[in-house]
Amino acid sequence: MQTITRVAVDAMGGDNAPLEIVKGAVDAVVSHDDIKVFLVGQEEAVRAELKKYQFPAERIEVVDAPEVIEMAEPPVQAIRKKKQSSMVIGMNMVKQKEADAFVSAGSTGAVLVGGQTIVGRIKGIKRPPLAPLIPTEAGASLLIDCGANVDARPEHLVQFARMGSIYMENVVGVKNPRVAIVNIGAEEEKGNALVKETFPLLKECHDINFVGSIEAREIPHGGADVIVCEAFVGNVILKLYEGVSSTLIGVVKQGLMSTLKSKIGAALALPALKKTLKSFDSGEYGGAPLLGLNGLVVKTHGSSKAAEITNSIYQCVTFSKENINGIIKERIADLNQNEQE
Amino acid sequence: MQTITRVAVDAMGGDNAPLEIVKGAVDAVVSHDDIKVFLVGQEEAVRAELKKYQFPAERIEVVDAPEVIEMAEPPVQAIRKKKQSSMVIGMNMVKQKEADAFVSAGSTGAVLVGGQTIVGRIKGIKRPPLAPLIPTEAGASLLIDCGANVDARPEHLVQFARMGSIYMENVVGVKNPRVAIVNIGAEEEKGNALVKETFPLLKECHDINFVGSIEAREIPHGGADVIVCEAFVGNVILKLYEGVSSTLIGVVKQGLMSTLKSKIGAALALPALKKTLKSFDSGEYGGAPLLGLNGLVVKTHGSSKAAEITNSIYQCVTFSKENINGIIKERIADLNQNEQE
Repeated sequence: MQTITRVAVDAMGGDNAPLEIVKGAVDAVVSHDDIKVFLVGQEEAVRAELKKYQFPAERIEVVDAPEVIEMAEPPVQAIRKKKQSSMVIGMNMVKQKEADAFVSAGSTGAVLVGGQTIVGRIKGIKRPPLAPLIPTEAGASLLIDCGANVDARPEHLVQFARMGSIYMENVVGVKNPRVAIVNIGAEEEKGNALVKETFPLLKECHDINFVGSIEAREIPHGGADVIVCEAFVGNVILKLYEGVSSTLIGVVKQGLMSTLKSKIGAALALPALKKTLKSFDSGEYGGAPLLGLNGLVVKTHGSSKAAEITNSIYQCVTFSKENINGIIKERIADLNQNEQE
Repeated sequence: MQTITRVAVDAMGGDNAPLEIVKGAVDAVVSHDDIKVFLVGQEEAVRAELKKYQFPAERIEVVDAPEVIEMAEPPVQAIRKKKQSSMVIGMNMVKQKEADAFVSAGSTGAVLVGGQTIVGRIKGIKRPPLAPLIPTEAGASLLIDCGANVDARPEHLVQFARMGSIYMENVVGVKNPRVAIVNIGAEEEKGNALVKETFPLLKECHDINFVGSIEAREIPHGGADVIVCEAFVGNVILKLYEGVSSTLIGVVKQGLMSTLKSKIGAALALPALKKTLKSFDSGEYGGAPLLGLNGLVVKTHGSSKAAEITNSIYQCVTFSKENINGIIKERIADLNQNEQE
């Protein structure tokens, strides 16, 4: 008997909703027969999009959610007031075990608030981190935490390191993933107060492969598989990554188009160039999981197209089949519960 | 009467010393007649390099410094023990007013320690920040602070903002420079404890053009002229900038070389591409000033070639002629002294 992973998808979230979201969901169920998608959103709009495609009807279900949470809304208020929004309804499905996971390209703030207040933390987990995969020369690394809860404490970072390690090993398939803490030098005595306090605690974790500090310069070279940092620094890394990449690609394009000779060269070189640049495109890796909750919540980029939505849905399947929450509970949450007793 | 700016240059610092350092110094005095350089280093090695060039002899003087501080040495110990090193001798020349500035491509830690303990802080300046210019689409922005003193307090960041503003206006020539604080969202209520405390203080500074928060994504687009942050975050930004740029340029090259067709295209496109990428090369902007000292100390990249050394020496001329230390003293240090009384 095959297990079906049930994924609730926020059909109204992000810049390209519902068009690209619906397309991504259809692609997911067409290409994988172990997925069922609940498209949560304004029913009429969602059904109008669905009409464009052929797909196994029993594996896409539309769940009506008349309200929409906008990108700029204050998240706490939005989650509290808009009970009929796609985000609140989708997360409640995870809470009620009607879905295994929830995927949204909507407001990051609302996803974080909803994840914690509706889906809820696994007992013993102190703070759920948002952990996107970022592209590197070597493949991809997990950057944990990029959420909204800044000023973390050392014990939070230790839990991030463990959850990140479990995720990379069991969902992404990296054996014995190298875990490093973001620092301003390679030596143990370097760093700010938080890093200096966290470093010895990570060294004591025998269930992870802690390799020490990583300087930001080494991140794009793939210097570690799990990159641990508090959310302010993580946010800076994530957004600077995007900013520098898009600026440089713009500069390269401008260079290629600046003379007649270079334009001819560009026409010849572009197909190959696009192919290698694709390996550096974060969209390939799907969304960022919000870990440590009673169910999986995945936040994908606000500008997500269908391919990213599809990849985010695939992520949920491995997460669910590998029983990641069970492992997190067993290896982290229970441990911390015992320590506190 | 023409004023001559006297710059002491660490002939032994960095990966390409003394070869590129000496070449950079020669280029500086040949192209500008208002500069005198003291090449501080192992006399024999420096003179052997100097022999290769023709230059106005009265404007380069060799100062013997038999000891060398290595990149990996613990900085405090190195500065304390190696009294005959190029770094200690060069900084003492600034302290004794025998030189207006000191330029080094050597160990960042040693430059920071030497700057504070030998050259010394301007009275009223709480912490001297290291402030590199980073390339953007629009030109360059000053990233302040990237030093080694992490866990800054709000009053430090306020001084950084003011010193950075003075530097960009008077040395780089940006009128009314836009000052922003690095944050994880544009709204005033966002941020970690440090940013939230600093934000209202910056709003009250009527001598700077404070434009609010800047997200890391906007930095490469040139979203502000002075980018204020504490040193841990600054260090992460600076090094990630380098890491993502070098990785992406590598990916682009790999793409261009991956097929026969693309190789032909690359041959046609490369000259124009190199020209535009040069505008995104931090070497063009010289080194990072360590501000707030009784004299100027400039740290250039460890891998500096002659052109970067020359640019770093030019920086010192403007700094000295525009009397930046006088302005810092008048506008920041005295103000803080008064506040404390």
